[in-house]
Amino acid sequence: MRESLHIVKVGGAILEDAALKEELLREFASIDGLKILVHGGGRSASALAQRLGVAVHMVDGRRITDAPMMEICTMVYGGLVGRGVVTDLQALGVNAVSLSGADLDSVHSVKRPVGDVDYGYVGDVTSVNAEALSGLLKLGVVPVMAPLSFDGQQLLNTNADSIASAVARGLARDYDVTLEFKFEKQGVLDSDWELVESLVPSTYETLLASGAIKGGMIPKLQNAFEALYEGVSRVIIGKTTISL
Amino acid sequence: MRESLHIVKVGGAILEDAALKEELLREFASIDGLKILVHGGGRSASALAQRLGVAVHMVDGRRITDAPMMEICTMVYGGLVGRGVVTDLQALGVNAVSLSGADLDSVHSVKRPVGDVDYGYVGDVTSVNAEALSGLLKLGVVPVMAPLSFDGQQLLNTNADSIASAVARGLARDYDVTLEFKFEKQGVLDSDWELVESLVPSTYETLLASGAIKGGMIPKLQNAFEALYEGVSRVIIGKTTISL
Repeated sequence: MRESLHIVKVGGAILEDAALKEELLREFASIDGLKILVHGGGRSASALAQRLGVAVHMVDGRRITDAPMMEICTMVYGGLVGRGVVTDLQALGVNAVSLSGADLDSVHSVKRPVGDVDYGYVGDVTSVNAEALSGLLKLGVVPVMAPLSFDGQQLLNTNADSIASAVARGLARDYDVTLEFKFEKQGVLDSDWELVESLVPSTYETLLASGAIKGGMIPKLQNAFEALYEGVSRVIIGKTTISL
Repeated sequence: MRESLHIVKVGGAILEDAALKEELLREFASIDGLKILVHGGGRSASALAQRLGVAVHMVDGRRITDAPMMEICTMVYGGLVGRGVVTDLQALGVNAVSLSGADLDSVHSVKRPVGDVDYGYVGDVTSVNAEALSGLLKLGVVPVMAPLSFDGQQLLNTNADSIASAVARGLARDYDVTLEFKFEKQGVLDSDWELVESLVPSTYETLLASGAIKGGMIPKLQNAFEALYEGVSRVIIGKTTISL
């Protein structure tokens, strides 16, 4: 039987609120067994960019990452946020280590090809170094993963949801994986704005047809089902558990 | 027989010059066997502080670290410099991981007590987690250590030479340790400004008495001898090898 592994993705909005962050990290610390935390930090990066007078460009909610912005992402995700989470976890007795995709060669990507938009130093995840992450887990260490991937030459700014999903899929062969997305909303809501506690493909189709599921929740759920089809045992979005 | 371990401390002046940095990292990559890199980064921290309008306070060459400066140190040492070194090493085929003192609980310190001067968020190293570092070395991983230590609650700005020396002493029981300080000068010079290639305690006393060794070299050599008395096999400062 595969050992259970809990992968928790935490958005920047939670980590940038001191009270929410403390609650989240205490809850994470109390999870028994193997675990990995994946964090964002986009708002802090934008805040630092503003202080430095570096322009923030977004296209369809995605950040255009030029060289000065990549430096900021490296400092904020790889330094301020990642080290901060590890420091707080260590103070709570959790033996953690902060990783970019280059650390331990943990998350591989390719620089996004230039199409209609040149996203700059943005990476799309190609694979995860499951052996390196398993090695840490076996030592009793909790990986804390920043939204920075490695293309073999350089770090690239990478969506934290994508990294969490890739890590979950990459480790699903060896572990019974729960992938949890913590965010500031309740989870999936039905047409009466009631929380859907348990979602399977048929429920998804019904809610999608009724228009209850729309906007940014659609790619989140599509990613969730992709992860499930690739062997992840369950995906939790807010308080909604998604399974096959 | 103890396995050999090479610990290299690299100052900011080398890492902040692209050509010197590349040469240094290629040389480091070519070292056979177990190795650890300890880096500084003070100039980059001062440069970011200036861009952010955060005042830099120094007393006797030591940085006063208030809360905004500590955030900058975390971003620069723990993010920009550490992740940059790891990225470059991975591109050279060296499997490395960037650590602050909180990562893996690797470097413990106490906040410096307030005396005539309040140094703020500055830590003096108390111990090194030799087991955690050995664990990485046994996995074939090269630790890249930032000048940030952990007092059990928070990260503290810490002298990189002190961290290198503490790591060397902490691992000297289990490994045959060479501790090398890379810096922009030649090494120890005698009264005729000739390089001293090999220094033992009697040479040191003679050069000290003649006035050839003075200023900042005195604490460097005192630290070197302390490390040797605590079991480190040899200390290399520039091109000078110091032993007992």
